[in-house]
Amino acid sequence: MNTASTNAISEITRNIEPPSRVAHQRAQAHLDSLTKPLGSLGRLEDLAAQIASILGDRLTLPLRKGVYIFAADHGITAEGVSAYPREVTHQMVLNFLSHGAAVNVLANLHHAQLTVIDAGVDADFHNAPGLLHRKIARGTRNMLHEDAMTDADLARALTVGAELADIAASSGQTLIAIGEMGIGNTTSASAITCALTGASPALATGKGTGIDTSAHARKISIVQSILTARFGTTPTQPSPLEILRCVGGFEIAAIVGMVLAAARHKLVILADGFISTAAIALAAAIAPSARAYIIAGHQSEEPGHKLILDHLKLTPVLALNMRLGEASGAVLAMPILESAIALCLQMATFSSAGVSGASR
Amino acid sequence: MNTASTNAISEITRNIEPPSRVAHQRAQAHLDSLTKPLGSLGRLEDLAAQIASILGDRLTLPLRKGVYIFAADHGITAEGVSAYPREVTHQMVLNFLSHGAAVNVLANLHHAQLTVIDAGVDADFHNAPGLLHRKIARGTRNMLHEDAMTDADLARALTVGAELADIAASSGQTLIAIGEMGIGNTTSASAITCALTGASPALATGKGTGIDTSAHARKISIVQSILTARFGTTPTQPSPLEILRCVGGFEIAAIVGMVLAAARHKLVILADGFISTAAIALAAAIAPSARAYIIAGHQSEEPGHKLILDHLKLTPVLALNMRLGEASGAVLAMPILESAIALCLQMATFSSAGVSGASR
Repeated sequence: MNTASTNAISEITRNIEPPSRVAHQRAQAHLDSLTKPLGSLGRLEDLAAQIASILGDRLTLPLRKGVYIFAADHGITAEGVSAYPREVTHQMVLNFLSHGAAVNVLANLHHAQLTVIDAGVDADFHNAPGLLHRKIARGTRNMLHEDAMTDADLARALTVGAELADIAASSGQTLIAIGEMGIGNTTSASAITCALTGASPALATGKGTGIDTSAHARKISIVQSILTARFGTTPTQPSPLEILRCVGGFEIAAIVGMVLAAARHKLVILADGFISTAAIALAAAIAPSARAYIIAGHQSEEPGHKLILDHLKLTPVLALNMRLGEASGAVLAMPILESAIALCLQMATFSSAGVSGASR
Repeated sequence: MNTASTNAISEITRNIEPPSRVAHQRAQAHLDSLTKPLGSLGRLEDLAAQIASILGDRLTLPLRKGVYIFAADHGITAEGVSAYPREVTHQMVLNFLSHGAAVNVLANLHHAQLTVIDAGVDADFHNAPGLLHRKIARGTRNMLHEDAMTDADLARALTVGAELADIAASSGQTLIAIGEMGIGNTTSASAITCALTGASPALATGKGTGIDTSAHARKISIVQSILTARFGTTPTQPSPLEILRCVGGFEIAAIVGMVLAAARHKLVILADGFISTAAIALAAAIAPSARAYIIAGHQSEEPGHKLILDHLKLTPVLALNMRLGEASGAVLAMPILESAIALCLQMATFSSAGVSGASR
């Protein structure tokens, strides 16, 4: 049976093509001709070849880079899962708009254009300038007691994200970093990770923004209860879309929509931390061909992040013990990606520089 | 007994002071007031506090960054330890001067000023413009058969490096990345690592620029023979200066001199790969107070690099499977360091942004 969300997904995922294998091979052959021992740039060579395979003729320096922060509130905060009060989602969105947050500093330093989207914050922003007003509802429902969202709201959130990818592509951006802000959303990410990978809540649930040991034990037990309540009576593995609807968030659903549409537009997609990557894992479960467009920006301190990166077979570019979200780790990886591209585009070859090759 | 090299070291290492503990504490307290969960920027917070403690009032953005590549040849290449012919040292210096090498691309992208120094290349550069001509000799002697250099040449090489730190400091640079170019110099770095840490040649010797398995086994055996020949009859642990003289290289000795003088000038010192870090380990063994000025830019693929980083208790900023040298990994870490500083200097505080703190 077609629902609003499956219809939205069919529309968004039509014609996702793989990156160019020819462009990949051409980039690798060129890298092998540069004045350095074969393979000695390590991961930078893989990254350059992947980006070349995605962008083809659109590969230029600097990359045209966008950063997208989707914000939303979560009904599960009623259960006391976070170290911070729910109002902080609203307050941090205002902080993004006044350029005071970590991601503002990093996006400015690395010349990436930041877009902040209200996908479902429990506050009225009164047409605040600089904010994209795409509120689905004032937070999800409490997923311990009912499905986080309706199918219609899921469809709307997916479309919000997909439309942003359309705008990014039409404005000429070639790389997008996707982050989030939402008090309580590591609980969603943990539930998604368990439902998608079969991991236990004890392994997939971390301390989020910094709860203490007893609150952590309680959070693990809440994630277990959520899984039992939402999927316990389901005889089969729930579909990625059903996982998203039952235990996701509006910002997570919008990210899923943006990732799928960005793959259709052949954009490089830079994953951030646990929540962003959990959303990307759902997108890749819905459309496996999207996977080749993803680069993992960093390894977060949240234990579930490693589970979900392993599930996606992604190796993060950075590992700096960060656990902030809001795309901070993804934006931090941007200069590394641009370095990889610069090396590929600008180094001399052995023949042009008159340097002798290896004797064996 | 005072020798030329001990006299040079006494001169270079006079008045190395520790970084400012007060500036470190002030930076950490400020980081704790910013709009992010406590400690959630991970390593970036440590890096920002360390740099603040070193630079004090000189902390600005962008950092004024220098990159120094010391080049020299090695007598040990007669034993066939490298995949590349000895002439490649000369050729790669010319490649640096014509802006074709990896470090040129990275230094240009990240706005660092590159200086290339001939500390002992076996070629005549005919006053090539853009090169600092500080040749000690046309390569070291073959350390399998005799000490790599005389005490007088060691003293000269140390002084060459120290003078570059003086110039860097007087020109206003606050961060220096130090790299090298020298066919055969991973063999020196392996011998240094073994002599300094007690590691076995099998653990400390890698494949350098890319030798095959049988050449690797031969290289391990050569490192063992070098250690026996140079230090086998010494009843006590050789001093760091004696290790440097017997199994070092002119570029390695110049790096030791630069690191020690840079610590005296309170510069941030960014280590590169195996050879650069082995030189830094010798400097830290000579003057332990220099250690606090070092940041490890990256973890190279050379197995000895991990040994020497562990010996120095340094955690690298990046780990991207690179094994190129020429300061490439150090320069790549620069945007991460500048990101750390930008966050520390430019983010809003909880009170300025009106964001609620953690409830527990």
